[in-house]
Amino acid sequence: MVTVAVDAGGADLGPREVAAGAARAAEKGIRVVLFGSASEIGAVPAGIELVDAPVSIAKQAEPANAVRTTPEASIVQATRAVAEGRAQAFVSGGSTGPALAAALFNLRRDRGVYRPALALPIPNPGRSPILLLDVGANVTCRPEHLVQFAHMGSAFAQAVLGLDSPRVALLSNGEEPGKGTPELVAAHEQLAGSRGTGLGFVGNIEGTQIFEGVADVVVMDGFTGNITLKLIEGVSSRALRVVTETAATTARGRLGNSLIGPAMEQLRESIDPEGPGGAYMLGLRQLGVVAHGRFSARGFAHAIEVAARGVQQDVIGRTRTALQEAGALRPASGRESPGDDGPGRDRPKRELAAGPSEPAATVSTQ
Amino acid sequence: MVTVAVDAGGADLGPREVAAGAARAAEKGIRVVLFGSASEIGAVPAGIELVDAPVSIAKQAEPANAVRTTPEASIVQATRAVAEGRAQAFVSGGSTGPALAAALFNLRRDRGVYRPALALPIPNPGRSPILLLDVGANVTCRPEHLVQFAHMGSAFAQAVLGLDSPRVALLSNGEEPGKGTPELVAAHEQLAGSRGTGLGFVGNIEGTQIFEGVADVVVMDGFTGNITLKLIEGVSSRALRVVTETAATTARGRLGNSLIGPAMEQLRESIDPEGPGGAYMLGLRQLGVVAHGRFSARGFAHAIEVAARGVQQDVIGRTRTALQEAGALRPASGRESPGDDGPGRDRPKRELAAGPSEPAATVSTQ
Repeated sequence: MVTVAVDAGGADLGPREVAAGAARAAEKGIRVVLFGSASEIGAVPAGIELVDAPVSIAKQAEPANAVRTTPEASIVQATRAVAEGRAQAFVSGGSTGPALAAALFNLRRDRGVYRPALALPIPNPGRSPILLLDVGANVTCRPEHLVQFAHMGSAFAQAVLGLDSPRVALLSNGEEPGKGTPELVAAHEQLAGSRGTGLGFVGNIEGTQIFEGVADVVVMDGFTGNITLKLIEGVSSRALRVVTETAATTARGRLGNSLIGPAMEQLRESIDPEGPGGAYMLGLRQLGVVAHGRFSARGFAHAIEVAARGVQQDVIGRTRTALQEAGALRPASGRESPGDDGPGRDRPKRELAAGPSEPAATVSTQ
Repeated sequence: MVTVAVDAGGADLGPREVAAGAARAAEKGIRVVLFGSASEIGAVPAGIELVDAPVSIAKQAEPANAVRTTPEASIVQATRAVAEGRAQAFVSGGSTGPALAAALFNLRRDRGVYRPALALPIPNPGRSPILLLDVGANVTCRPEHLVQFAHMGSAFAQAVLGLDSPRVALLSNGEEPGKGTPELVAAHEQLAGSRGTGLGFVGNIEGTQIFEGVADVVVMDGFTGNITLKLIEGVSSRALRVVTETAATTARGRLGNSLIGPAMEQLRESIDPEGPGGAYMLGLRQLGVVAHGRFSARGFAHAIEVAARGVQQDVIGRTRTALQEAGALRPASGRESPGDDGPGRDRPKRELAAGPSEPAATVSTQ
């Protein structure tokens, strides 16, 4: 039985909504330890262990600092529970920055991993989902980060999406290997060479191709990932709106709208951020899932379920093995350029100094 | 009467298709000088002046080098015609790289402009179009480039889209001023300060907001612009496909599909790349329009028409004035950091050395 530590602070609809989601997950046989304000949550649903943690740092502008100075914060306690073995994965219901900072502080990066990444499976009706990563953990990335993301994504697609040999692509502004930012061009070269060992690397794809079924895993830096994700959501919604609003100007069109209602509903579901439950945080020593603060109980229940599934499918172990076999792990010591994330052991403090969502954190390592 | 120099080389459907588009534009009172293979084009349509230029460099991997060594190439001749005053704008029917290289070589950057940008108005049914720039001229950009793009886009929106005070935004991964790449954060700071003088700067917007009508001009680097453009195209097409295919599995849905046909058609038109005719190349001493190689005669006709309209509306002059009034022009000399695009006069040769579509061109200036 898997235990998931859930941060109930920071959710837009309040900790009670998260608790309701936790109750649904508990009904499916998942043990949940909930960290949030006992007075706001009120009656604790059956099957849930509640730890009173009324302090939330979800809205803090400097998450790294907040994590260090607020050990009692709900997300800090939730990640500590995983670090101490009281749970096997955590779910954050607040914003990405504090969740990432708390995870780096308490769980730390897995040995040989440069940067954790957020991976999100996007439904593609009639086809298998497309895994996008990084969807927001790292604003800028070096080539070796992107190379690791490719392996992390592939291992995840095998473990969780059930694909035997996932096809992995880089998102770029052209299919040719020379297209893209300098970081993408270098990552392409490494993935096409020995660093792509064991990987079904299919090269670059363009934005038009994401849903064409040419790749199962699409790798990008966290800035591009955020833009991509938001565009998928925004452009799909707009397409639905344009069609239904235009149709609604005539009687024929209004009838048409009602007849294709189920089809519209299917598209709406495919872009519903609550469906996938949130993004998986990969590259840490244990698993985390970052839900969106806007989620309702349904979304939080999904987040807890996917976290439990990730533990059962050993996402972390499989990712570690894939990186190892491809020789894509960070060298152990002394072989890196100055300013690298290494050398040697993890340095959570250094990363935390600037904060994971601060551009400065990545500038200083270039 | 405006004369447009048109490169007929590089179009996927061949130079005859470009000639057919030119004929349509000529019917609307635009003078066209066509540069392409006389033997392939055959009979010259009425109102068109044909210059036999059978050599195309549209598919060359190193456009900058090709431009220098192939003065007889159709795109090189077309841009030279504009430089020598035989035409007031050019239209390229091939790929962006050679068009940009030829334009930099023959037309050069306007005084005080760091980099030319490609600006594309995207239809937004029921609302005014959204101008995106840069959609592909510069893979990476420094903050001062983005600041100039903001002014170029605003001037364009006034001149061509007819907006009195366009609202200008930066595309980022969050609305807060501190969100985004280091370049975006710095550009935001400048635009919120004196470098935003005369500009309706509204701050950062996210990908979900592009079509929400919160900004008329959305600024980004050319890599992000390419991804954005292709995602809008790809995600809209997918949305249409999912809805119609899902609906088509039932008799009710098939009827619904036929009833909302006109609404679907309107969305299809709004994402048809041939509609806007191509992207405007801003920041040069004269105007260029980059059509897509896949275009049919209809798209090329649009491209020639928008080029002529840009000349009539004095896009170049208005852009120059806007940059000047905001103090956003490149300093005249000696006040720049090493590795800048300056100092002083334009340096087309230096930019051409690496080629406009080569990442190396931008790496070297960071």
